[in-house]
Amino acid sequence: MLKGHQTWVFESKPVIISSAAVGGPFEAQGALAEDFDILHEDVWLGQDSFEKAEKKLLEQACETAINKGKMKKEDVQFFISGDLMNQIISSTFTARTLGVPFLGIFGACSSAMEGLALASLLVDSKAAKYVVAGASSHNVAAEKQFRYPTEYGGQKPPTAQWTVTGAGAGLVAQDGDGPRVTSATIGRVVDMGLTDPFNMGAAMAPAAVDTIEAHFRDLDIKPSYYDLIATGDLGSVGHRIAGDLLDKHGLKIPREIFTDCGLLIYKKDQPVMAGGSGCGCSATVTYGHLLNRMKKGELKRILVIATGALLSPLSYQQKESIPCIAHAVSIEM
Amino acid sequence: MLKGHQTWVFESKPVIISSAAVGGPFEAQGALAEDFDILHEDVWLGQDSFEKAEKKLLEQACETAINKGKMKKEDVQFFISGDLMNQIISSTFTARTLGVPFLGIFGACSSAMEGLALASLLVDSKAAKYVVAGASSHNVAAEKQFRYPTEYGGQKPPTAQWTVTGAGAGLVAQDGDGPRVTSATIGRVVDMGLTDPFNMGAAMAPAAVDTIEAHFRDLDIKPSYYDLIATGDLGSVGHRIAGDLLDKHGLKIPREIFTDCGLLIYKKDQPVMAGGSGCGCSATVTYGHLLNRMKKGELKRILVIATGALLSPLSYQQKESIPCIAHAVSIEM
Repeated sequence: MLKGHQTWVFESKPVIISSAAVGGPFEAQGALAEDFDILHEDVWLGQDSFEKAEKKLLEQACETAINKGKMKKEDVQFFISGDLMNQIISSTFTARTLGVPFLGIFGACSSAMEGLALASLLVDSKAAKYVVAGASSHNVAAEKQFRYPTEYGGQKPPTAQWTVTGAGAGLVAQDGDGPRVTSATIGRVVDMGLTDPFNMGAAMAPAAVDTIEAHFRDLDIKPSYYDLIATGDLGSVGHRIAGDLLDKHGLKIPREIFTDCGLLIYKKDQPVMAGGSGCGCSATVTYGHLLNRMKKGELKRILVIATGALLSPLSYQQKESIPCIAHAVSIEM
Repeated sequence: MLKGHQTWVFESKPVIISSAAVGGPFEAQGALAEDFDILHEDVWLGQDSFEKAEKKLLEQACETAINKGKMKKEDVQFFISGDLMNQIISSTFTARTLGVPFLGIFGACSSAMEGLALASLLVDSKAAKYVVAGASSHNVAAEKQFRYPTEYGGQKPPTAQWTVTGAGAGLVAQDGDGPRVTSATIGRVVDMGLTDPFNMGAAMAPAAVDTIEAHFRDLDIKPSYYDLIATGDLGSVGHRIAGDLLDKHGLKIPREIFTDCGLLIYKKDQPVMAGGSGCGCSATVTYGHLLNRMKKGELKRILVIATGALLSPLSYQQKESIPCIAHAVSIEM
């Protein structure tokens, strides 16, 4: 099961029998709108707070994934989820709605792949038959908590990123049809001393590189093994840095197969600065767009490396630098 | 591995080869002072913030556990940890110090047993040889974040509890000498509609009961199987409610073997209202006191049910009730 230092190889190849992506109005105008199961016109989702709206996104993603898998909540043994809200309330309140035994996780925007890695481990080790893994973020709720309420109209530098309003969920099972999770590499915390919360991509790039290198070293394979290698939410600045660092370290990933969920999700004319971010970014792009492409036969083997900036507003105020992490999951048809 | 609906039975019985508990000045005056590896006279631990002090507690607990196990950080594959701070910064910054691949978790005060359950799963399924599981809390950091800065001198009702300043960590391995983790029951979120953050014990009691019942149902054993059954931090109010609920549901636990970490940790004359709480409560009592008693031969089989109140200050302000959860881990000599 453990290969090398930090990679799990899932011998039974757990199956993602169904998945779902739910988004907001800005994602509905984005480049991947067709890959969402539900798109909301109202950023409030009819709720009286943005936090409750985020919970609604995650509830819908989980319920849609369960329905698409022709299952009932009662058939699912465990729900694994994380999000950016303090005390991951989007996940815990969704766990209350689902009523399924719950493992709360936190890896900031890496949560989507931390959850999928753990769900696959549970299924592979026969600790569960069915597990739902999920993650969510909401642009306005995240801005309010981490930076300023959007009503304040604060200016942002071009290195800043746009938190995705969206949630993704996958139903992982021992048997069935669908893309299969073949391995996962759990990342270390890497902190290069960067302190600018408006340039998360640059802060997270070395963590992504560390995990990508560990993945290929542990499995002793080459990047050409994959049809697509997608980082989570490095955006244009961080993704370029990650590519350069990998080149420098002698692990060249052909640029035509190296992308970033934060670069895929929005259209070029949407004002998202350096690209998309948030737990919902890699979650919706993976559980929607990428799995759809696999099912269409366009992609056979992919590696998703979700990246997370593990700061809090308080650690930033206390002049701490930004510790970062990345978890990689490989999915094959 | 999965037995019943939500219980993992670890066939290889992962070993806690070493563990450590670190506490603050108030814990040094407590009933279990002798069971701590390190006790600090200074609630600041020489740091310039209480959050950094909490990180120091957790770092010391992890490093002490690793040293007691005669291991090096490099030998450990994974670190699993959670705490109460926003974005679990105590755990993520400790993960930065350790440099070990990291799985961040959040289950509020249930995090200690969520982490031990997952660590045991990793070891049992050969996904790791050595895993460190940890959890921490700091009284002043928690008060500041969840209620009021202590300088404000706010009054508290007798149902309130005292957040433990402490951290506990255990080193879980495939082989070796020491207490063995035999099973874990992962809890569901239970919310009975209670909204009073100064009476967490009452809010969490039904979640503890739900998990305890699931544990005995899934394993088809009786409470008398255990020498001690300890809830995490229900305190005097919640623990009495849990006992009454269990009696009513027909699952009588003899009172002489039924206790609560929050009732054990402090002396009767310490002004802790209904008892101790926080991630550090079940973490220090389990990784210190209870494991020490097992090694001395006083206890052969114990069940620890760590309880967590999954609210955030914001969910409380938005008039949400308090979702609660409990995870149980059984440890045998």
